[in-house]
Amino acid sequence: MAAFELTKEYLLAIEEAIENRNTEYLTAELEEHFPADIAAILYEVNGEQAHYLLQLLDTEKGAEVLSNIEKEDLKKFIKEQFTVEEISTYVNLFDSDDAVDLLNQLPIEFREKIIASLEDREQARFIIDLMHYPEDVAGGLMQKELVKVKMGQTVSECVEEIRDQAENVDKVYAVYVVDDHQILKGIVSLKQLVLARRNTRVENIFEEDIVYVDTTKSGDEVAQIMQKYDLEAIPVVNALGRLLGVIMIDDVIDFITEKAEDDIQKMAGITDDVEEDDSVWKLAKSRIPWLVIGVFGSLMAASVIHQFENILARISALAMFIPIMGSTGGNVGIQTSSLIVQSLSEKTPLEMSLGQRLVKVVQVALINGIIVGIVAGVYVYIIGEPDLFWVVFLSLISVVILASFMGTITPLVLEKFGVNPAIASGPFITTANDLIGIGTYFLIASSLLNLQ
Amino acid sequence: MAAFELTKEYLLAIEEAIENRNTEYLTAELEEHFPADIAAILYEVNGEQAHYLLQLLDTEKGAEVLSNIEKEDLKKFIKEQFTVEEISTYVNLFDSDDAVDLLNQLPIEFREKIIASLEDREQARFIIDLMHYPEDVAGGLMQKELVKVKMGQTVSECVEEIRDQAENVDKVYAVYVVDDHQILKGIVSLKQLVLARRNTRVENIFEEDIVYVDTTKSGDEVAQIMQKYDLEAIPVVNALGRLLGVIMIDDVIDFITEKAEDDIQKMAGITDDVEEDDSVWKLAKSRIPWLVIGVFGSLMAASVIHQFENILARISALAMFIPIMGSTGGNVGIQTSSLIVQSLSEKTPLEMSLGQRLVKVVQVALINGIIVGIVAGVYVYIIGEPDLFWVVFLSLISVVILASFMGTITPLVLEKFGVNPAIASGPFITTANDLIGIGTYFLIASSLLNLQ
Repeated sequence: MAAFELTKEYLLAIEEAIENRNTEYLTAELEEHFPADIAAILYEVNGEQAHYLLQLLDTEKGAEVLSNIEKEDLKKFIKEQFTVEEISTYVNLFDSDDAVDLLNQLPIEFREKIIASLEDREQARFIIDLMHYPEDVAGGLMQKELVKVKMGQTVSECVEEIRDQAENVDKVYAVYVVDDHQILKGIVSLKQLVLARRNTRVENIFEEDIVYVDTTKSGDEVAQIMQKYDLEAIPVVNALGRLLGVIMIDDVIDFITEKAEDDIQKMAGITDDVEEDDSVWKLAKSRIPWLVIGVFGSLMAASVIHQFENILARISALAMFIPIMGSTGGNVGIQTSSLIVQSLSEKTPLEMSLGQRLVKVVQVALINGIIVGIVAGVYVYIIGEPDLFWVVFLSLISVVILASFMGTITPLVLEKFGVNPAIASGPFITTANDLIGIGTYFLIASSLLNLQ
Repeated sequence: MAAFELTKEYLLAIEEAIENRNTEYLTAELEEHFPADIAAILYEVNGEQAHYLLQLLDTEKGAEVLSNIEKEDLKKFIKEQFTVEEISTYVNLFDSDDAVDLLNQLPIEFREKIIASLEDREQARFIIDLMHYPEDVAGGLMQKELVKVKMGQTVSECVEEIRDQAENVDKVYAVYVVDDHQILKGIVSLKQLVLARRNTRVENIFEEDIVYVDTTKSGDEVAQIMQKYDLEAIPVVNALGRLLGVIMIDDVIDFITEKAEDDIQKMAGITDDVEEDDSVWKLAKSRIPWLVIGVFGSLMAASVIHQFENILARISALAMFIPIMGSTGGNVGIQTSSLIVQSLSEKTPLEMSLGQRLVKVVQVALINGIIVGIVAGVYVYIIGEPDLFWVVFLSLISVVILASFMGTITPLVLEKFGVNPAIASGPFITTANDLIGIGTYFLIASSLLNLQ
């Protein structure tokens, strides 16, 4: 079937059926949909309706539906609608990484009650193991469910292992080969298992050269490694090489897209992770910090202008070029910093030195500064203020060069101090360059014009 | 092994070994590395050296290495270093989608010679089939290599199909079930194949409810669907439901990350797809269009200020608040538009109507406008220009509201006309809002101050 698209009409039909407790219709409809599609429906109905729909599903499908809902949204829904017993039956069936993500959102008392009441004690152990790890490192992204075999076992035995694990492990791409100390030795892909004879031994078909990561590897790096080597799953080991879990590509993709969204919000000067449909207050709050910082920056620019008020009173045409200095500085700063941020996030093996970077940045800035300067210079003649030509021309070139410097150095410094450099491509650069641009302009203006 | 990291020292050793034609050392080293790592080395040495290294590998590994290199970079490398015969031996072994991506980069004469000289005639047919499709739709992302079985076949026969295809198909996650007319009927996952008895028939274990896409589906939508349903591969069919190919998750991830990078560059006002290590000219050129548009915008702002020169000559303190109007407008505009762009790209099933959006936007803007207005208002008193309080306060609130409107409407309009709305979060919004901000300010200033 092609992917399902939820329409307003369909949603109304569902809501009406819920009102009328038309379970027959609803059960038949839900039967038709994938868990991800049912999750999309739950997002659109209210908490009580969602809870009702969920109860129409068998627990297994219900758990799959819930694992398709963002953990933050799930938290609210669960706290309002669910008893501890209900949650445990679902959490029992979650992949261990999803279970931990959810439990981490809940208050501690709640969390402990759920773990205590889990029917599957292995799942409880998995969860407790995983809770140690921060969310955004390999340990926090991995799931404990995987299929392990030992050297000496045969293909038939591998198949039996998979069968035993089949109810716990949703997706299997490979079985992992470990020694008696649980040290990871290699993998046998499912394709190899399918093609091998049933009595072949693991050591004759396993692949020794495999890529793995340590539990402490950052999520970014895990994503880069999986992408580089085209992996659908990557094993996670501890410092001794013991196999602890596996990270699946679908969890990493979510990580990649969330990170891209987050970077874009940072660039846009939004501090919290918000969405258009959050509350008015939350939206307003997420914007205020950078707006206020921007205002302080602009008020500092106002003070700079204040200092030069007598030259401005004498030559009032100078005011006309305040905007161009600020905005050109801001635009150049963002163009420069976004490329630096991009190249930092790519971690190409051999990076340019700071010196090489700056030489290049100045060359680019000179070319663009001259072009921009000429355009503005022509305008100066057109409006009949030829005296201002050199002031405007030289100021613009200086502003472009200074803004390029700022745009290069800020993300590098932030990166050094462990701050996400994407923040530097945002309002910080605009604000700083506004100030630098206007300051440079008035300094050049007062020195050139006072000489005349 | 943990992921390989290329160091300067190692690279020097490799380069020296190439100079000395130390094939023994080099062959041993290359043996140790994954194709993706060898590709990273080729990126750092010059074309001649890369060609030499490649010749030390067997053709199969060589082809894998080349398919890890960006097609645009590969184009230059191939044109400079390779004969048509050499390329064909590699292209022969590429996945069909990679082969087409590469050939599309080459001049037509070259392309035709390569296709004509391909040893594997099936590959040639695959390539010709795929060349019809634009790069960024499902047809352009799919590969033709896949394992097909028919109803009535047994698990043993499926395994034989996989064995037959094993040399062509690198990754197999499932076999696709088709009828006599090649219409896609379902899939059998490798896990099911492993667990099933050898004489079981396909119709008893195949999964009927699967998600597929049409060749014309956009790459974005394919990515969203694969992400939503956690798929590692998705079949592609034509309008009649005939199975034509399959899209692998690794190709889609590349698509997602490229798109995120592209959006960020659009937001930053960079027109071409550039990287920090591109040439100075290319970098300068990619920035000029938006810089010049920004300059024109600022010059229009200059003309606005020109119109109000007499009020400015009378009250020169007014110039101090030019920057705050421009930059607050710009910041608010970008904050607003980036959220709209984000919510557009998520295509949540039921979007808010324009009216709902605007009501919300105005509420948020009012809160933020009042806060920003008060901060600036306090400053006005501090510097001893209390006459300007209402001008600055009311202008800022108006600017925040107008900029929020602009930030909401621009991406929606662009989306309607099929333009990537990310462009609207960039310099366009800043430039437009600079202008609107300054215009509003002087209008309010002249009407309020002339009344006094």
